[in-house]
Amino acid sequence: MMIACGALIASSWAQARRATQEGGIHPMQTLTDIRTVAPALEKYAQGPVAELWKRPGLSLRDRSIVTLAALVARNHTVEMPYYMNLALDNGVKPREISEIITHLAFYSGWANAVSAGAVAKDVFSQRKIGGDQLPPASPAPLPLDKDAEAKRAAGVQQNFGNVAPGLVQYTTDVLFRDLWLRADLAPRDRSLVTVSALIASGQVAQITYHLNRAMDNGLTQEQAGEVVTHLASYAGWPNAFSALPVLKDVFEKRGH
Amino acid sequence: MMIACGALIASSWAQARRATQEGGIHPMQTLTDIRTVAPALEKYAQGPVAELWKRPGLSLRDRSIVTLAALVARNHTVEMPYYMNLALDNGVKPREISEIITHLAFYSGWANAVSAGAVAKDVFSQRKIGGDQLPPASPAPLPLDKDAEAKRAAGVQQNFGNVAPGLVQYTTDVLFRDLWLRADLAPRDRSLVTVSALIASGQVAQITYHLNRAMDNGLTQEQAGEVVTHLASYAGWPNAFSALPVLKDVFEKRGH
Amino acid sequence: MMIACGALIASSWAQARRATQEGGIHPMQTLTDIRTVAPALEKYAQGPVAELWKRPGLSLRDRSIVTLAALVARNHTVEMPYYMNLALDNGVKPREISEIITHLAFYSGWANAVSAGAVAKDVFSQRKIGGDQLPPASPAPLPLDKDAEAKRAAGVQQNFGNVAPGLVQYTTDVLFRDLWLRADLAPRDRSLVTVSALIASGQVAQITYHLNRAMDNGLTQEQAGEVVTHLASYAGWPNAFSALPVLKDVFEKRGH
Repeated sequence: MMIACGALIASSWAQARRATQEGGIHPMQTLTDIRTVAPALEKYAQGPVAELWKRPGLSLRDRSIVTLAALVARNHTVEMPYYMNLALDNGVKPREISEIITHLAFYSGWANAVSAGAVAKDVFSQRKIGGDQLPPASPAPLPLDKDAEAKRAAGVQQNFGNVAPGLVQYTTDVLFRDLWLRADLAPRDRSLVTVSALIASGQVAQITYHLNRAMDNGLTQEQAGEVVTHLASYAGWPNAFSALPVLKDVFEKRGH
Repeated sequence: MMIACGALIASSWAQARRATQEGGIHPMQTLTDIRTVAPALEKYAQGPVAELWKRPGLSLRDRSIVTLAALVARNHTVEMPYYMNLALDNGVKPREISEIITHLAFYSGWANAVSAGAVAKDVFSQRKIGGDQLPPASPAPLPLDKDAEAKRAAGVQQNFGNVAPGLVQYTTDVLFRDLWLRADLAPRDRSLVTVSALIASGQVAQITYHLNRAMDNGLTQEQAGEVVTHLASYAGWPNAFSALPVLKDVFEKRGH
Repeated sequence: MMIACGALIASSWAQARRATQEGGIHPMQTLTDIRTVAPALEKYAQGPVAELWKRPGLSLRDRSIVTLAALVARNHTVEMPYYMNLALDNGVKPREISEIITHLAFYSGWANAVSAGAVAKDVFSQRKIGGDQLPPASPAPLPLDKDAEAKRAAGVQQNFGNVAPGLVQYTTDVLFRDLWLRADLAPRDRSLVTVSALIASGQVAQITYHLNRAMDNGLTQEQAGEVVTHLASYAGWPNAFSALPVLKDVFEKRGH
């Protein structure tokens, strides 16, 4: 599927204008809008950023998930309508978008999910996506890897059980024995969302655990490298470069 | 005091829709809104997040201060009206909210305070809170602990006096000999605001000093653990987990 | 050039109200607005924050560039219209503002640039700044320091060539052999933008390289110290203090 990058930046721009002005949206004017401020931005959008989406190391569906996770984690509602629609076009299911938002309520903060939910409501409504396409509030859980989870829980308990016992308990009960077992987003994709959000919001200290988990869940080294390449454009070069030493260290320790 | 969590998420959602759309607010539709995107979010809001507010380790008033500090630090204006009203309901005084905003102008950045101030103006206006309930611009200062402050100032001067002499001077004159001595927010609460904002915005390197200061000002270890437990939901799990090693280290060094 | 600080905070407040309300702007009411919430904020705005702009260590033009970079990096659109106009008043050229936005698309993330672009469109329109004052999409590049660039590229390739080969290639092709050679923002100013954005968004791990580059490009130690002093107010004390040890280390290693 081709990325219509002129439309991409145009749509974002229109949303941005809507967010900063009271005025209406005039989609036909947006390409002109860009040229009136930063002609180079249009050039880069149609060149390297558009090419990013055509690189072979990561599918269009994955790139859409990565981008959406970054936008939610950074609370960039301005670009969300365009990329949520693009995600649906690229094969991400409505129930998966619902799960991404729910997941990031915990991994990015509640308000980020609320803001993303307001965007999703409009996008779903415009595309006539009804409740039958959403995940249930409490689906039958995926099977739990009891040994791995017991080991994780014991490690956290030993480290922080006396520091914040409530947080340790919530992490087990709500996150790893509930949220992560929700069936409507595959564990590998849930990990992809988590790692993308961590990189995009500069949460360097939390990448090691979740990148290992992502690779245990099936993310390849090549894909992880492409995730950070992709995020450089959407979350800024500094976040990407701060993640690189962690990726390097995880890759080396896994000894591929 | 009970937390009406349906109202909570509903109100936030309405604000989010107002911020991302031109359309009006239809409060009666908001619970329906949530269900049209992420039924699980409603479940978590009414379950673990609502229960958080009932945990014994931290008062409702403290939880309101922690939440408000996190929202201002993260510039999440969408959820501010609801939580500012909740803070007032939970016993936080208007003059304390005014001081929280003023304090975070320095600890989160000026624009964060300006955005929060615009929300507070509306909330205060709706509740008929007048100027007589606000702190004066220049109140009589609290007494200064001259020895502790001289020690702090000397340490910073020695470390950074040649690096950024202006910043060192401002820190002493504007922050520790002015802002921190403002009487309308108790030092313990001012510390609670500071620590909450630092954790919520991922400012890990600055937590050690301010957590020690908070505990010197009366925050207990149990309360500090509950602050990070509370913030996991409002500022995301990664920020909470990145703070845990600092809490652990501070607790151990203080010999609890 | 004097800073009309009452107007400053008033204008920001008006923008904030516009962003959080549907209602119109009533500029004459804004000073009153501030007093209705936080009288101390007005005092600090007219005192230490206004004085910041009069300090001798950094020109008004530089302070405008630093402030604008911080606002774009933090996505604080609320304060952008005022500070973009102030930057133009202080001698920053429209083509330089265009380049700052384009540059920060890469150093802060694409959505930040899109949001800033929407603000710039309005400001440029109000000031009748036309396309003849903008930089071309593809200007003749500045001369490349081939030895320094080869050394940089080799270091990154050796460190991360196997981790994220795509990112390493983009960094060379799009950033250091294209973006950084765009002629309409002087390399020293481009470095000033980069360092300011890194400090303002807490990207501590990336400051060392770019502060050294900035000083190679002509930024003095005194100016760098003033940048962090300035940013304490606009990006919060914690970001400033987390940058200080990096500044100290870079200054010492350069042998000042």
